[in-house]
Amino acid sequence: MKLLILNGPNLNLLGTREPEIYGNQSMDSYFSALQNKYPTINLEYYQSNVEGEIINKLQEVGFDYDGILLNAGGYTHTSVAIRDAVSAIKTPVLEIHISNIYARESFRQISLLSEVCKGTISGLGMDGYLLGIEYFAKK
Amino acid sequence: MKLLILNGPNLNLLGTREPEIYGNQSMDSYFSALQNKYPTINLEYYQSNVEGEIINKLQEVGFDYDGILLNAGGYTHTSVAIRDAVSAIKTPVLEIHISNIYARESFRQISLLSEVCKGTISGLGMDGYLLGIEYFAKK
Amino acid sequence: MKLLILNGPNLNLLGTREPEIYGNQSMDSYFSALQNKYPTINLEYYQSNVEGEIINKLQEVGFDYDGILLNAGGYTHTSVAIRDAVSAIKTPVLEIHISNIYARESFRQISLLSEVCKGTISGLGMDGYLLGIEYFAKK
Amino acid sequence: MKLLILNGPNLNLLGTREPEIYGNQSMDSYFSALQNKYPTINLEYYQSNVEGEIINKLQEVGFDYDGILLNAGGYTHTSVAIRDAVSAIKTPVLEIHISNIYARESFRQISLLSEVCKGTISGLGMDGYLLGIEYFAKK
Amino acid sequence: MKLLILNGPNLNLLGTREPEIYGNQSMDSYFSALQNKYPTINLEYYQSNVEGEIINKLQEVGFDYDGILLNAGGYTHTSVAIRDAVSAIKTPVLEIHISNIYARESFRQISLLSEVCKGTISGLGMDGYLLGIEYFAKK
Amino acid sequence: MKLLILNGPNLNLLGTREPEIYGNQSMDSYFSALQNKYPTINLEYYQSNVEGEIINKLQEVGFDYDGILLNAGGYTHTSVAIRDAVSAIKTPVLEIHISNIYARESFRQISLLSEVCKGTISGLGMDGYLLGIEYFAKK
Amino acid sequence: MKLLILNGPNLNLLGTREPEIYGNQSMDSYFSALQNKYPTINLEYYQSNVEGEIINKLQEVGFDYDGILLNAGGYTHTSVAIRDAVSAIKTPVLEIHISNIYARESFRQISLLSEVCKGTISGLGMDGYLLGIEYFAKK
Amino acid sequence: MKLLILNGPNLNLLGTREPEIYGNQSMDSYFSALQNKYPTINLEYYQSNVEGEIINKLQEVGFDYDGILLNAGGYTHTSVAIRDAVSAIKTPVLEIHISNIYARESFRQISLLSEVCKGTISGLGMDGYLLGIEYFAKK
Amino acid sequence: MKLLILNGPNLNLLGTREPEIYGNQSMDSYFSALQNKYPTINLEYYQSNVEGEIINKLQEVGFDYDGILLNAGGYTHTSVAIRDAVSAIKTPVLEIHISNIYARESFRQISLLSEVCKGTISGLGMDGYLLGIEYFAKK
Amino acid sequence: MKLLILNGPNLNLLGTREPEIYGNQSMDSYFSALQNKYPTINLEYYQSNVEGEIINKLQEVGFDYDGILLNAGGYTHTSVAIRDAVSAIKTPVLEIHISNIYARESFRQISLLSEVCKGTISGLGMDGYLLGIEYFAKK
Amino acid sequence: MKLLILNGPNLNLLGTREPEIYGNQSMDSYFSALQNKYPTINLEYYQSNVEGEIINKLQEVGFDYDGILLNAGGYTHTSVAIRDAVSAIKTPVLEIHISNIYARESFRQISLLSEVCKGTISGLGMDGYLLGIEYFAKK
Amino acid sequence: MKLLILNGPNLNLLGTREPEIYGNQSMDSYFSALQNKYPTINLEYYQSNVEGEIINKLQEVGFDYDGILLNAGGYTHTSVAIRDAVSAIKTPVLEIHISNIYARESFRQISLLSEVCKGTISGLGMDGYLLGIEYFAKK
Repeated sequence: MKLLILNGPNLNLLGTREPEIYGNQSMDSYFSALQNKYPTINLEYYQSNVEGEIINKLQEVGFDYDGILLNAGGYTHTSVAIRDAVSAIKTPVLEIHISNIYARESFRQISLLSEVCKGTISGLGMDGYLLGIEYFAKK
Repeated sequence: MKLLILNGPNLNLLGTREPEIYGNQSMDSYFSALQNKYPTINLEYYQSNVEGEIINKLQEVGFDYDGILLNAGGYTHTSVAIRDAVSAIKTPVLEIHISNIYARESFRQISLLSEVCKGTISGLGMDGYLLGIEYFAKK
Repeated sequence: MKLLILNGPNLNLLGTREPEIYGNQSMDSYFSALQNKYPTINLEYYQSNVEGEIINKLQEVGFDYDGILLNAGGYTHTSVAIRDAVSAIKTPVLEIHISNIYARESFRQISLLSEVCKGTISGLGMDGYLLGIEYFAKK
Repeated sequence: MKLLILNGPNLNLLGTREPEIYGNQSMDSYFSALQNKYPTINLEYYQSNVEGEIINKLQEVGFDYDGILLNAGGYTHTSVAIRDAVSAIKTPVLEIHISNIYARESFRQISLLSEVCKGTISGLGMDGYLLGIEYFAKK
Repeated sequence: MKLLILNGPNLNLLGTREPEIYGNQSMDSYFSALQNKYPTINLEYYQSNVEGEIINKLQEVGFDYDGILLNAGGYTHTSVAIRDAVSAIKTPVLEIHISNIYARESFRQISLLSEVCKGTISGLGMDGYLLGIEYFAKK
Repeated sequence: MKLLILNGPNLNLLGTREPEIYGNQSMDSYFSALQNKYPTINLEYYQSNVEGEIINKLQEVGFDYDGILLNAGGYTHTSVAIRDAVSAIKTPVLEIHISNIYARESFRQISLLSEVCKGTISGLGMDGYLLGIEYFAKK
Repeated sequence: MKLLILNGPNLNLLGTREPEIYGNQSMDSYFSALQNKYPTINLEYYQSNVEGEIINKLQEVGFDYDGILLNAGGYTHTSVAIRDAVSAIKTPVLEIHISNIYARESFRQISLLSEVCKGTISGLGMDGYLLGIEYFAKK
Repeated sequence: MKLLILNGPNLNLLGTREPEIYGNQSMDSYFSALQNKYPTINLEYYQSNVEGEIINKLQEVGFDYDGILLNAGGYTHTSVAIRDAVSAIKTPVLEIHISNIYARESFRQISLLSEVCKGTISGLGMDGYLLGIEYFAKK
Repeated sequence: MKLLILNGPNLNLLGTREPEIYGNQSMDSYFSALQNKYPTINLEYYQSNVEGEIINKLQEVGFDYDGILLNAGGYTHTSVAIRDAVSAIKTPVLEIHISNIYARESFRQISLLSEVCKGTISGLGMDGYLLGIEYFAKK
Repeated sequence: MKLLILNGPNLNLLGTREPEIYGNQSMDSYFSALQNKYPTINLEYYQSNVEGEIINKLQEVGFDYDGILLNAGGYTHTSVAIRDAVSAIKTPVLEIHISNIYARESFRQISLLSEVCKGTISGLGMDGYLLGIEYFAKK
Repeated sequence: MKLLILNGPNLNLLGTREPEIYGNQSMDSYFSALQNKYPTINLEYYQSNVEGEIINKLQEVGFDYDGILLNAGGYTHTSVAIRDAVSAIKTPVLEIHISNIYARESFRQISLLSEVCKGTISGLGMDGYLLGIEYFAKK
Repeated sequence: MKLLILNGPNLNLLGTREPEIYGNQSMDSYFSALQNKYPTINLEYYQSNVEGEIINKLQEVGFDYDGILLNAGGYTHTSVAIRDAVSAIKTPVLEIHISNIYARESFRQISLLSEVCKGTISGLGMDGYLLGIEYFAKK
């Protein structure tokens, strides 16, 4: 089973950036823990601040992987292009948000991606990624 | 550990009602499976079509249980009163939706509850309940 | 043929409440007249001020009756839960309003139920119920 | 008793036009059936695609007829001028829609005419005209 | 000097229609009085309920007359096509309303024509036409 | 003189629920103090979390009591049905809010009840009830 | 007959201010011309940049004068207080605008005053005042 | 104890202005009655039609008085500047409206002041001032 | 192959009307050029200022022609009735605009017709018609 | 003559992506056909998923090419930056959409680019590019 | 060189009012420092809480001064009249805000003045005035 | 002291692009002038058309530089991702616009960045950068 965790802009700063919102664990250490916990899953990680590179990655893996856990960060609320990429590919995509986006600024409460994703996990911290892997693993 | 699965209006018809949206498993059989899977968790189930009875239940368990998985059905989008009950109690509440509410009618895309819940799991079918239990179990 | 007239909040006050809008005939005397006029139809009447009890009733009769004439009163404009119940059942539902709701306050001009009902009769006074019975009888 | 059935644009195509929405009976054959059913009523039929001709007709009959059944088609949603004509005349006007306009595109869910008509019958197919005649006959 | 008074839908009913809003003088008797008062002005009167005929008339006189007093009735609020005709012709057009449109229903408070007319006189009763003639006469 | 204090959802938790907003006095002890202060007034107290039960109570007392102090809690912002009940009864109703609802979330700043109540007292804490009694007593 | 021309903010700059919009005649010279033309009318002129002074003036003359021609300038679009003053007095008020306010910025197209004034004359330049005097003189 | 009753535009006309809305008692006679009723309170009264003078007064008393009862009239709905003055001073301000502003025009249902005031009393007639004094007296 | 060019209101003034927007070629001379360029296509031209006559024409040719190039002028933005006619017929309709409607007034940027037409060509001047013919010819 | 076809995100998937919307021809084969059909035109093709690279390309060719056919894909609806690039360059740009964007989701019906492009061709499939080339060739 | 610093309502309280937003330096001491720093500039200071007096001042200096630094306080968001005064005068006006108005309440994020001012400096504290003087000095 | 001037899309065309809006000085020559004027400040310049590269740069310098002058061009109005980067870093960011964005198209009047920046300088031409450096230098 091949899964991609695909993170968007500023998520490379996890652990540093606004820890009262995003917690203080870095993505690197968390990703290692996930790999240890799921040794039989081929788990890949990719992050970019560039909208188009996220689209490139979705297109690259989107016809053979078994699942994508997508946290598109700020692009969640503005990117029709990423939405179109999610629609265009075959692999099911699960939308992940670390913070509860519905309890934040009004522009952050609308996701252009939710409608074309399989489902959404929001507000459960880093564990949102873990639960997403569980979801794909169970299927 | 004590957890409550609290379902709102029409969710007693699961398995019967619009199976192309909600699937065809009844809540009873699914709940039994959950109890079997998590024998050490004190797992309770309650459903009502009456908004005020959902509030009564939230108040009743909301000061000792360890978590509530709330699928408020149609009240999700209209009930300030349930929202106030979630705010008023101590137990953390996780919002669950079986279908992807963000891919349905526009009035169903806005939840009055999300802002005061701990987080949201939407669109992952009945497994939303299971992942919610995992979340509380992990904490 | 089995038909239910299902009235929502405050419609128990018909004849008493704002007679310049709703007329001064009580539902009881009107219902007797309907029963006399259609002796071969099994005509039932139910009223509740509680949103959830209206849902309970819809679920109870909604898999064997031949038709429901639903005047949901003030819940017409606010209840996603009743709408979901109408969608979930098999019996066709006809929406009835005694007054012309489109000539009243703006919040009363939008019905959440119309989209899922078979049709709507509005503004024709108590005769709206009679015409609704004619409609089901003709089919 | 003199009644007018007044149909607006494209309703001359009934039976031909989008039969999945409007059914496949032509207005001519339906109108003959109505005349047979109500032999004592002086029943007239008029259709025009021109907004101003509908106004002309309303003004022409609007001071002696006993009732008008108006299905203004697409002008329902855009014509302040027809609305003004309905307000200006003495004959009561009943608004008829064959399809359930509240279950269609959002611009079709708002009627400029409802507020000044006596009432509305929507979604009951061609039988909407029949029920409207019943309504006037009963009065 | 050649001036046209151009009236839109339902204004042929002046004196008959809703006299509490529009007064009870007919346009015919008022127009005769105007002709008597301004014997040296070539004053013409035209009324139609048909939007396109109003456009035809605007095009017909709009390149030689000295002024047009346009009361487009209900088309004031809905007709981009009449607006375009006013823009397309050379003769200056003055918008007249008998009633105070800004003190009526909200949809009647927006005029698509005002922006392309020379000016507006509203709420001064039939005298709005007289003042409009004074305006053109003074120039 | 007979007055009813009628409290809606979650107000049974006063003293416990979000004390930084609602204070920490329970309704029971406050109500006893009110009874002591106004011994000659027949003062009744009722609370329910169920929207329909609040309507039932309004109908029950609304034709003989001298006044109702209604704090409808979360239903204030969503209930057309309670609004209709207030309109339908004879007893004047005074709207009470403990917190200043205009300084809270935007959905809490609109009350469907204000328009049909006699008046509103908001933001003055528990003393809002006391001032309301003063108002009825003075009349 | 006593009439007041009441001008609001920046109208003291007429002739100087944005002549492409407001023309280049000063109010002083225009007012003299009006006085000469209507020698039998007691014509008064008052201008202020202060909203409250306009209200003071309306209250001062508003119970004996025969008419007020009010050009409230920028306060037209923002002042509920001037609107309330116009409603509170007995003298009829005519709203005057030199430029066509409906052909300018969107915030300038809405007048809070129109609804409570007798009528509106807009876009006819300084002659708007003259036509307003004609209107009062004719009555 | 020092309290100020601060009235805004047109409230000097109380008793004269639209008595069906505001009643027919003048503020002078009502204020005398209040002074008689509360002889131990230093009660001051100030009214102005000028927005800036209301701000001046708020600044003048706003650092020593014990309370201000502010009825800002038409400025309630438009004045960010008065709102800022209320925020800037130390004395708590209570917002008073004689009529029920929530049952009037839509622009009158929004108050810019409520959010920064201690609370609001609306719709209880002149007694709103009396209840406001009771509130401060009780504290 | 039979094609209809169907022009709406004011397009008979092409070459005369606002040449800075619509150019200065008349439709007659342009249509002759088109006929010369496509001698093998049966090309018809019809223009009307009357909304209903455009509908009549659409119904008349809409079941045998191979294509319609529709420039509905001002009715583009307001006519649900023309939209319904386009939906009701079999012939594919191509929407043409001479000017770039998206670079003009906001009300001109929304077309009620686009959704039911095959496609849209906007802003390419008279050549829009030519390209439309090319499109049908190529198919 | 030099023309650029400039395609935005996900258009590299043409032929693969949602063929029911976009057809099943790949851009490569279509582009070869275009080159064969117009041997005398210097026709270039460029595609990128990265918003900024589209801007780079517009700047690179935008001062010497004779025309650009821009299909900005999902960036059409969100990119002020591409709009600014189109405004900043000299080469005229034609907006192309394969599908009829006005018949899809509401967010896809608004183009930020249309206003600054020369014109728009939408809904005519891959032939939109061909017709665009015809347009430039004809000029 | 003559410059005016023109401050609107409540800015006389600087140093006292909400210091967490506006800082704790008084305008008097800051103005003295500015005069010392720019001894060759004729620097004037004026403050008023009255909207009309700000307009009076703009008109008084607006035809000879070299620049005006306008902080209109709460009137920024509501005053069309001050906007009109800025448009009417010759002297360029620079809009200054001490706090970052775009990070505050939504009604404070819209300035009616920005469009007619030369530019805006916001959020840089008292130094906004200093930078504004630098700007005029440099020109 | 280390400062970065960070320019977004199309600002590399300064001097070439729409000079009536942006002036005709190139950024290169202006930047050299700034370096000469502030020899003791370590002044860096970076421009990119790619949204993600602007984020990369903000992250790269945002933990040691003393200030950033950010002109995000068209991304100002659409980029939640750049906004998040500004929030995530430690260095204070000043928002600069050459033109007065509040006097342009409505979509350009809203900045997603203002709320998280220290302040904004808009409309003062290239000197906005200079004043921004002054601001940081003074601190």
